[in-house]
Amino acid sequence: MTEFAQIAPPDPEVAAAARARHDRLTKPPGSLGRLEDLSVWVSSCQGRCPPHQFQRARVVVFAGDHGVTAAGVSAYPAEVTAQMVANFDAGGAAINVLADAAGASVRVVDVSVDADVSHSPSIGAHRVRRGSGNIAIEDALTDDEVATAIEVGRRVADEEVDSGADLLIAGDMGIGNTTPATTLVAAVTDSEPVAVVGRGTGVDDAGWIRKTAAVRDALYRSRDATNPVALLRICGGADLAAIAGFCAQAAVRRTPLLLDGLVVTAAALLAEQLAPGAKQWWQAGHRSTEPAHAVALQRLGLEPIVDMRMRLGEGTGAAVALPVLRAAVAVLESMATFDEAGIAGGREERSLP
Amino acid sequence: MTEFAQIAPPDPEVAAAARARHDRLTKPPGSLGRLEDLSVWVSSCQGRCPPHQFQRARVVVFAGDHGVTAAGVSAYPAEVTAQMVANFDAGGAAINVLADAAGASVRVVDVSVDADVSHSPSIGAHRVRRGSGNIAIEDALTDDEVATAIEVGRRVADEEVDSGADLLIAGDMGIGNTTPATTLVAAVTDSEPVAVVGRGTGVDDAGWIRKTAAVRDALYRSRDATNPVALLRICGGADLAAIAGFCAQAAVRRTPLLLDGLVVTAAALLAEQLAPGAKQWWQAGHRSTEPAHAVALQRLGLEPIVDMRMRLGEGTGAAVALPVLRAAVAVLESMATFDEAGIAGGREERSLP
Repeated sequence: MTEFAQIAPPDPEVAAAARARHDRLTKPPGSLGRLEDLSVWVSSCQGRCPPHQFQRARVVVFAGDHGVTAAGVSAYPAEVTAQMVANFDAGGAAINVLADAAGASVRVVDVSVDADVSHSPSIGAHRVRRGSGNIAIEDALTDDEVATAIEVGRRVADEEVDSGADLLIAGDMGIGNTTPATTLVAAVTDSEPVAVVGRGTGVDDAGWIRKTAAVRDALYRSRDATNPVALLRICGGADLAAIAGFCAQAAVRRTPLLLDGLVVTAAALLAEQLAPGAKQWWQAGHRSTEPAHAVALQRLGLEPIVDMRMRLGEGTGAAVALPVLRAAVAVLESMATFDEAGIAGGREERSLP
Repeated sequence: MTEFAQIAPPDPEVAAAARARHDRLTKPPGSLGRLEDLSVWVSSCQGRCPPHQFQRARVVVFAGDHGVTAAGVSAYPAEVTAQMVANFDAGGAAINVLADAAGASVRVVDVSVDADVSHSPSIGAHRVRRGSGNIAIEDALTDDEVATAIEVGRRVADEEVDSGADLLIAGDMGIGNTTPATTLVAAVTDSEPVAVVGRGTGVDDAGWIRKTAAVRDALYRSRDATNPVALLRICGGADLAAIAGFCAQAAVRRTPLLLDGLVVTAAALLAEQLAPGAKQWWQAGHRSTEPAHAVALQRLGLEPIVDMRMRLGEGTGAAVALPVLRAAVAVLESMATFDEAGIAGGREERSLP
């Protein structure tokens, strides 16, 4: 099931009301810059002005392994994916700490980890398969698996929204996952591998060369793909397909979403193809140091909220951006108007003294 | 009293320990980018690793009027300064809302407001004079007033640190204050007025021309000034001198401080002259749209944490950055190490498959 309902935009009338309210707040018009834009966006997504502060911000980390690690594309062994899932469950990973600092909670979804993680409360009923195929030499998934994985993401989004989530953050975990993500970005944006392949978790020069070769091979295998499902099958992965379904369904459910780094944004490129207009419900949390991430953000026309030169994934960049988004909501929700403060609000016309 | 104690740097041994700890946390080394740098800085300022989360972050807004408003340099009438002080007290201003969102509290200090604000709890015993002089045609202050104003800032910093503040944020409020601030930046960095004069709260083209003329006249009057006290006297203001004293004393007291926008950063340029090395205790909260702000940050060698195209002052840019700094502290304080998580931490050497 890869069809999505038509995406309606956030409410333009509420956006206009939010802009008008900003001009009545006790500050020069426009002086809060992008904070004003972000607050108008939240207001229009919520369909109310002033907006409400987020009550249930939710990070969902989609975990999956990738057969392409056999090509030596990562600085870490594949076993680390399952170990990190356990670390998420124990609350010791960066995303646990950063989500907590930002007032968000974390859920981990095992989409395609290639290990027994049945001891983990995250295992759930969402696994599509053990690991995705080695995209350098074979398809990542079958068409049916793509559909199943997209449906996993959609179902998780529905569960979260039905449980009251009013802001979603998409995150990723999976050794080797920047290789398919980079391939997808290159395929969608028609970019040369050498221009978009980055260091991921930190491969050395030889590893970068192996990674670039894997991306080039996968890109060649995808040369005739004409739709997002085919791309996800040939050079994607189950986790990437699930993230795409999650991002698209957030828009269907009129729920604002923060994108994270390369892996999430690569999936979002395909979500925008699956559900055109979905990107109106997203903001880019951050810009990572991965070259393909900047390319993907540019294609989506999204400007990152923060740029801290991060490259970890997990949703960490978006989690760092969340307090900035909260600050934007707070000013539009809580600042006094000129009338309330008894201040002459309009800028006066000055004559020369 | 314009002499400051010798500034010692944040603890380099603790910084080294913090860097070493980062490499043991469950993430690829360096993958949290600038967040790692910021957390190492906080750790070294606090002299302990891991660092503690800030318990008492404190915004101090220094309010003052400026005679140069008579030259038509601002989009707002001077009376707004006192009205905004009342708005701060009532909790309706942007800095109240943003500080609250960031877990900080706000104090307003009337250094040189040109109005009766005795109804305000902020009035205190800190006023140096009613308004500073019109720097286009006369000195802003006397030498004695400069010394008194610096002492005000120093005393306020001492009061805050003695009351348990573990992070300080300097803010400003004063119609017309970007005119002396821009002049100070131009004087210190030898910049042409047209290259650094911005729109402040939003003057129109004619206002910008008047403002640039005022900056040029003040700059000419300061041509022989050879020290920070003379600059503050000729083309500064009591609020700017107080902020300089505040920033310098924060460093004396080994307390980290976030700079805000143009006005605070202009004062910080002089604080670094008054107390060389003080800047090691500061981070730049944000970059505003004022051209002189970018020039001042570059001179200080500080990279802003966020860039939201804000131009409000009050400490608002720093308040938006504070949660990012808190996030940095949180990761170094609370993330699991590879050992704790039972994960093979070292990156493995990959051989070709």
